[in-house]
Amino acid sequence: MCFVELFIIDIQSGGKRDEDLILPINSSLSVTLHQDQLKTTTTVACSRNFQQDRIWLNGKEEDINNPRLQSCLQEIRRFSRKRRNTGDSTSDASSVSHKVHICSVNNFPTAAGLASSASGYACLVYTLSQLFGVESEQLSAVARQGSGSACRSLYGGFVQWKLGTQLDGKDSLAEQVESESYWPELRVLILVVSAEQKSVGSTSGMHTSVETSQLLKYRADVVVPSRMEEMIRVIRERDFPAFGELTMKDSNQFHAICLDTYPPIFYLNNMSHRIISLVHRYNQYYGETRVAYTFDAGPNAVIYTLQDHLPEFVQVVRHFFPPEVNGEEFVKGLTVCSADLSEELKRDINMEPTPKGIRYIISTKVIVGLRKPTY
Amino acid sequence: MCFVELFIIDIQSGGKRDEDLILPINSSLSVTLHQDQLKTTTTVACSRNFQQDRIWLNGKEEDINNPRLQSCLQEIRRFSRKRRNTGDSTSDASSVSHKVHICSVNNFPTAAGLASSASGYACLVYTLSQLFGVESEQLSAVARQGSGSACRSLYGGFVQWKLGTQLDGKDSLAEQVESESYWPELRVLILVVSAEQKSVGSTSGMHTSVETSQLLKYRADVVVPSRMEEMIRVIRERDFPAFGELTMKDSNQFHAICLDTYPPIFYLNNMSHRIISLVHRYNQYYGETRVAYTFDAGPNAVIYTLQDHLPEFVQVVRHFFPPEVNGEEFVKGLTVCSADLSEELKRDINMEPTPKGIRYIISTKVIVGLRKPTY
Repeated sequence: MCFVELFIIDIQSGGKRDEDLILPINSSLSVTLHQDQLKTTTTVACSRNFQQDRIWLNGKEEDINNPRLQSCLQEIRRFSRKRRNTGDSTSDASSVSHKVHICSVNNFPTAAGLASSASGYACLVYTLSQLFGVESEQLSAVARQGSGSACRSLYGGFVQWKLGTQLDGKDSLAEQVESESYWPELRVLILVVSAEQKSVGSTSGMHTSVETSQLLKYRADVVVPSRMEEMIRVIRERDFPAFGELTMKDSNQFHAICLDTYPPIFYLNNMSHRIISLVHRYNQYYGETRVAYTFDAGPNAVIYTLQDHLPEFVQVVRHFFPPEVNGEEFVKGLTVCSADLSEELKRDINMEPTPKGIRYIISTKVIVGLRKPTY
Repeated sequence: MCFVELFIIDIQSGGKRDEDLILPINSSLSVTLHQDQLKTTTTVACSRNFQQDRIWLNGKEEDINNPRLQSCLQEIRRFSRKRRNTGDSTSDASSVSHKVHICSVNNFPTAAGLASSASGYACLVYTLSQLFGVESEQLSAVARQGSGSACRSLYGGFVQWKLGTQLDGKDSLAEQVESESYWPELRVLILVVSAEQKSVGSTSGMHTSVETSQLLKYRADVVVPSRMEEMIRVIRERDFPAFGELTMKDSNQFHAICLDTYPPIFYLNNMSHRIISLVHRYNQYYGETRVAYTFDAGPNAVIYTLQDHLPEFVQVVRHFFPPEVNGEEFVKGLTVCSADLSEELKRDINMEPTPKGIRYIISTKVIVGLRKPTY
């Protein structure tokens, strides 16, 4: 029912200029991925017999009093009542006063830096809106109050979350830059190196970065605005080498800001470093950027490449990270053709193989969102 | 005969504004360590029978045509000739035309981010100056042309390398901030996690950072100048918590710049991350900064603490990184008393022990340099 988004340009949903409204300190851009491979499935039931709102995440009951969850529930109910009062609602008039039971399941590791909260809140807000009869135009702002970047996950394709200038945040909304069909050759691989819970949740991380990193302000004020423009331009031109280089530089700068936070936050581990080296050596061999990485708040790599280069790069990964399992257990999702590697390529990359360094790969692509873009 | 320096504030000898003269893009500050524990021993022989200059590093002959080595040899000979021409020299008049054989040995891992080139060049230049009869006032500029930070290693105690403003770099020199006796309680531990050669030499790293990191310019122009002032102030006030926090923040920011370099440079590994976590958790337990870390161009940690806290912290390291060897094989250098750890401390730190994560510790302190400071 819902889906995961992964960041191209992002500083972890920004770093907030307003913690309650969840307003970012810079604009950001993301790509929404195919829900066949990475998805959150959320089911909501409501009944007059329910005593209280409750939520289960991956089968385990979680605290319903989480302030962000409460914000989303309250906002959705407020919009629903408002709509009913103006006579626009088509939903059961009584449902808004009922308590809800929410079940949310991810088919990918939670809290391992794969934007699980963005996907989760986008899905939750969309599902609640269906139940309570809330118009889709309002969802972006509601989802933002759950997890900032969730506002982008409602759309498919390439999505920008605009910084906005209003104090109340009403213009801090997501907007589609290009649809999923704009660049069909673009492919995505997620290299899962670890399913461990990350040591610092990304929300507390962001908060500390805004307070302590001297470099963050410079990044937000000077670097990101010009990169955003350039990123939108290279996506529109389908210029993969420029897109890839910018994506890698921005991922690295986000992690640099994490390191400049006090105490520092580390999301990348030795295996992430090895993947980064592999990508640069592979590109160097061809003298052009054929493959790019980006890392969110965890050690797992998201790899962008074009369809033509996909089979060889997957084979390169298999060679330098000999897997424990094979076939579909190693490469999940969209089928990847097999490819042979030249001895010259293997020799030029010149890295010691790391057996079992990557647990599995999810092969996927950019996809349509839940919500049609508004113009 | 010579000694290692370790950085407090540094961005790897700056990042150069002039690659030939080795002029930095910001001022920096370092601490020179006791040569009993960490030293470079350099021996120079000269003879009319030698056919050419030659150099051996840790027993292995190296390329004498290394441009930096050549700069140092040429500069020292030029000063020697100049002095002889003015009749000031007390050395053997003929020696300057003889070829030299140089042997240099470090008693610590070379090229593992322990400032081996700074120590090596400082030692080399000092030794050559003794042989050729060159005045000590000129050594700082000569050493700088070997390895930028070597100009600081000629002094003991707390040493500043001033940026300077002249184009020819004549005012880009080292100067003592406080002598080694100013803060006798300050102790230093080097936690050696790996003797592997680092993957990117720090010289090529710096060069790439200046060309590609957007954050470096902001750091050099805005952050470092104010931090330098503050660092000198807190050293003069012997304010350990402020000194420690600033040291950690600056080390983290240096590594953030490495990450913002393209392609990115990683000096810290998983073990470095664990040491950083341990230090922050230890300080958090006491509610004050009792221990601080700094990392140069490698994964080994340099720990600053005060004498009173040293035994307990060494015991903490021993507990969370159970060593393969014990006693003096694990803690080398200055003796560290034993200490007991409370169960509460161990519980509060709450980290999984990492057996053999640290190979050994060098226990040392701040010490006098080769050269008396000039006022």
